[in-house]
Amino acid sequence: MKTTEMLRTHPAATGLDADLLVRAIESLASCVQTCTACADACLSEPTVAELRACIRLDLDCADVCTATSALLSRLTARDVDVTRAQLQACVAACGACAQECARHAEMHEHCAVCAEACRQCEGACRDLLTTIA
Amino acid sequence: MKTTEMLRTHPAATGLDADLLVRAIESLASCVQTCTACADACLSEPTVAELRACIRLDLDCADVCTATSALLSRLTARDVDVTRAQLQACVAACGACAQECARHAEMHEHCAVCAEACRQCEGACRDLLTTIA
Amino acid sequence: MKTTEMLRTHPAATGLDADLLVRAIESLASCVQTCTACADACLSEPTVAELRACIRLDLDCADVCTATSALLSRLTARDVDVTRAQLQACVAACGACAQECARHAEMHEHCAVCAEACRQCEGACRDLLTTIA
Amino acid sequence: MKTTEMLRTHPAATGLDADLLVRAIESLASCVQTCTACADACLSEPTVAELRACIRLDLDCADVCTATSALLSRLTARDVDVTRAQLQACVAACGACAQECARHAEMHEHCAVCAEACRQCEGACRDLLTTIA
Repeated sequence: MKTTEMLRTHPAATGLDADLLVRAIESLASCVQTCTACADACLSEPTVAELRACIRLDLDCADVCTATSALLSRLTARDVDVTRAQLQACVAACGACAQECARHAEMHEHCAVCAEACRQCEGACRDLLTTIA
Repeated sequence: MKTTEMLRTHPAATGLDADLLVRAIESLASCVQTCTACADACLSEPTVAELRACIRLDLDCADVCTATSALLSRLTARDVDVTRAQLQACVAACGACAQECARHAEMHEHCAVCAEACRQCEGACRDLLTTIA
Repeated sequence: MKTTEMLRTHPAATGLDADLLVRAIESLASCVQTCTACADACLSEPTVAELRACIRLDLDCADVCTATSALLSRLTARDVDVTRAQLQACVAACGACAQECARHAEMHEHCAVCAEACRQCEGACRDLLTTIA
Repeated sequence: MKTTEMLRTHPAATGLDADLLVRAIESLASCVQTCTACADACLSEPTVAELRACIRLDLDCADVCTATSALLSRLTARDVDVTRAQLQACVAACGACAQECARHAEMHEHCAVCAEACRQCEGACRDLLTTIA
């Protein structure tokens, strides 16, 4: 991804710690892909009926991360309250999805990978949140 | 929109007040379209340079409402904390966008229409929030 | 939805038949919601294992319609080739989803409602396509 | 990104060349971020009024790539016609955005970076398209 280059060449100031911002944006992109793929992998499992909550939280997490990623990619006239609230929603969505995926991690390796992506994204969003006054 | 029919034919229980839920989902769909169109209308204005914050908040609001709408459309294994946090982010995004659009409402009629859509959506999300324990 | 008002107050010319454009945008918003809700309703069905293709096509259709709706809501510097190609993808996605949902329409009423929303959206996109040189 | 791991752990067969699929999905994620950031960087430029077409095509390209990426991340019951049509729309959107960004590449470095991301994504989608019968 070209996140660092895009940040460096943007005419506006970041207003946030650049390293934390890049890490959050790239973790979000990874989490969107992983959750979308995990929902679909669960859907293909013979035990799909036991994976309903996992599929649902995967889809929610992908949707919430997509929105959060777009907000963080914009530097022009950022609204701090909106950014903070969306990051908090993202921490909640990633945390809930990680917890559910972890329950199936031994049975389904895609859930193990997804739990890890969600935990990393949750951490990156949480770290960024602490820097927003 | 067929929101009411889809809710009625869903095998799972709503878990939320059905009328408030339908109103929120339909207000969100309207808000996504209005904000996307308002960002584009602002972009076409001769005074686009004065409308930067408005365009940015329009885009944020459309993204946040898109995610919120998807979450509310799902009844299977809903996570109350994620739903609440995303609704709170949506209230913040709609409120910020409505406020910015209202500043240009006399000059640009599309901003007046958009401010109204955002206020309505903010209210519908706030009403739904009060019912989530 | 405020689609007609947003079109009327936009400073740029539509470049497309306004009635067909409004009908397409509003059909797309309805189709996004219906497909998202149908995927989730299928997920809650006891026979979820037989509804895999339906869930997958519902999700695809919602994603494709979301993108198409955003493109159509923008009038500034529209690229005709991109618009046409995205409308063609949308006709394909709505058609495939309608066909799959129709197969379960007698068993699952949400699939019947969804098939209808997809067919209507497919028609609205097709009608708009015929006006794009 | 964990695209390769998610593909390897998915219970269904890919049905497409795995290397090309991973490259397409990761190029799409990069293109979404780059286009979203480029639209915002253009919005912050003093010469924003000359960058209207660039902003609009950036937003379109981000939306089209988001949908395409989700479709490619799903392996369950893939519809070949829908996949092909959406990839074709994506090639058109990336090509149009790359061409517009290239016009400003000497003036705005973010447009140079974005043009490169779009060209790479266009190529990755085109390569994948050639393998779909």
